[in-house]
Amino acid sequence: MNSNDNKVIKIAIDAMGGDFAPLNEVIGGLNALKNKPYLEVIFVGDETQIKKTISEQGYSGKNYSILHASQVVTMKDDPAVAIKTKKDSSLYKGIDLVKSGSADGFISAGNTGAVMSTSTILLGRIKGVGRPTIGTFMPTVKDRPSLLLDVGASVDQKSRFLYEYAIMGAIYAEQILGINNPKVGLLSVGEEASKGTEEVKLANKILQESELNFIGNVEGRDILAGTSDIVVCDGFTGNVILKFAESFLTVLKSKIKDFSERGIFNKLKVALMVPTLKLILKDFDYQTYGGVPLLGVNGNIIIGHGKSSPIAIENMINRAIEMTQKDLTNKLFEALNK
Amino acid sequence: MNSNDNKVIKIAIDAMGGDFAPLNEVIGGLNALKNKPYLEVIFVGDETQIKKTISEQGYSGKNYSILHASQVVTMKDDPAVAIKTKKDSSLYKGIDLVKSGSADGFISAGNTGAVMSTSTILLGRIKGVGRPTIGTFMPTVKDRPSLLLDVGASVDQKSRFLYEYAIMGAIYAEQILGINNPKVGLLSVGEEASKGTEEVKLANKILQESELNFIGNVEGRDILAGTSDIVVCDGFTGNVILKFAESFLTVLKSKIKDFSERGIFNKLKVALMVPTLKLILKDFDYQTYGGVPLLGVNGNIIIGHGKSSPIAIENMINRAIEMTQKDLTNKLFEALNK
Repeated sequence: MNSNDNKVIKIAIDAMGGDFAPLNEVIGGLNALKNKPYLEVIFVGDETQIKKTISEQGYSGKNYSILHASQVVTMKDDPAVAIKTKKDSSLYKGIDLVKSGSADGFISAGNTGAVMSTSTILLGRIKGVGRPTIGTFMPTVKDRPSLLLDVGASVDQKSRFLYEYAIMGAIYAEQILGINNPKVGLLSVGEEASKGTEEVKLANKILQESELNFIGNVEGRDILAGTSDIVVCDGFTGNVILKFAESFLTVLKSKIKDFSERGIFNKLKVALMVPTLKLILKDFDYQTYGGVPLLGVNGNIIIGHGKSSPIAIENMINRAIEMTQKDLTNKLFEALNK
Repeated sequence: MNSNDNKVIKIAIDAMGGDFAPLNEVIGGLNALKNKPYLEVIFVGDETQIKKTISEQGYSGKNYSILHASQVVTMKDDPAVAIKTKKDSSLYKGIDLVKSGSADGFISAGNTGAVMSTSTILLGRIKGVGRPTIGTFMPTVKDRPSLLLDVGASVDQKSRFLYEYAIMGAIYAEQILGINNPKVGLLSVGEEASKGTEEVKLANKILQESELNFIGNVEGRDILAGTSDIVVCDGFTGNVILKFAESFLTVLKSKIKDFSERGIFNKLKVALMVPTLKLILKDFDYQTYGGVPLLGVNGNIIIGHGKSSPIAIENMINRAIEMTQKDLTNKLFEALNK
């Protein structure tokens, strides 16, 4: 047990981010408060809507507050524009609470790019970090997902950034996911250290010489195989893989629908199959993992999918609490400035 | 009908490439000969084994020949080493037949890297080609697959190469796949022309100005959605996606097996589900497309999966025939040297 476990922890919630805001955000936030006397949540967003939603849930506790914000950053907003024109948004004001020390962490199921860029600008990068990074949890055939990063913070494939992602991913996996000595793999086009671009080859060399549990290059097929706990790649490749992976279930559903529409027997076959298939594929539901950390900024930020359920929101809050309790930002600083 | 359709066409087959060589290669080759009086196949490899396999098939036709080769390039061979030390291999001698004009095309289910590098060195690049390319067919929700290229010829992301891949992919799709005015998409991290690396942004500009039916940037999710007929990317990204995609069915099988082993009812549910699922996922079987062209070398080369079935081998031969009949190499030369 960490000595900080009893300290009051304040987590700000972007109550207006996400496709089902503020409902899922409010339910998830209130659920997170249960059995956590040390927790306070700050709902940031339209006060009237938030109050109404809380009231509808019949919640009577006092361990939350509301910070009114008149604007909303939508999924379609350009992050660079939003940061200038929407300073009274729930997203901006929530991150600002972390900056001022009024909150220990911030979670959002809103516009990922806007959370990333606003956090980087308001909170600043941890010393030693060239590029903050955001990853994604990938389901594997093993009993836990792997963390693929970067998936979009920086499209440039630079060995220095790849090295930073590896360090930050490993510290997160060890501290927050509880993985002892996590295996780090570098994504490339072959297992041999000689395979890949010049930057990847250089990153391989740097990682070999690091204190990380570096297992060498891994390939596309290793991601779902769970060969390593951390899969390091540039944000261009990571983003393409993430969107490609997310499209699998959509395609599968579409193929099943097409098949089902070709006759009554097919419809019956599909009806018999789908419940089983859903059970089998539940690990492929991105909701399960409830958000990913933005690593490398001075603050505890968790970003979730726009479709985040109340459970996903609650999980995101729990992650932000753990990041606070474990003093993750400081641990990242130490690891990057040895 | 092309005026060349009645000309004798000779296709060399790497009878020793592939995991089931020479059996699948021989069956596929003999099947391809049926109803094609203009076709001659040349089986390249161990004469004794090939003769025995042909005899076992009870084939009595005369429209084939055997070129003995004493060596075999294995899947594990380093292409750079193989080209120097295995000049009496079926792979090397088969490509050499194309070089000398003794064959119009060559197909192999063997070591992809070795076929690529040996072809590039022996046959040379088409004028105007900086990097020959190999693609892969990706299943889509539409009625035809998309062609993703490059998937491994060159790991460097250069706008000039991306442009060449686009041209070669489009010509192949139009001439061989019969797609009129194929849509070309450039893989990036967002639809906007401003998204991606500097090289991708530059490629977007070059492609906008080209005569191709360029639809702009596409994202990871567009590959299986079939948004474009051709998906252009660097070989690093393409290789990672290909291996990631190929691993999906493996993972699905593994998850189904795990589920099935948890109790008799689960076993029953799986037994009921699997036949339907197989039908639905048949497009995801990479065998269907039977090999991909190596584009940009002076010769008609088709490379197939190591596990190629006899049908896949036959399809590969048919593709090589079409490339010959359509004079594809010359069409690529013209398109690249306008």
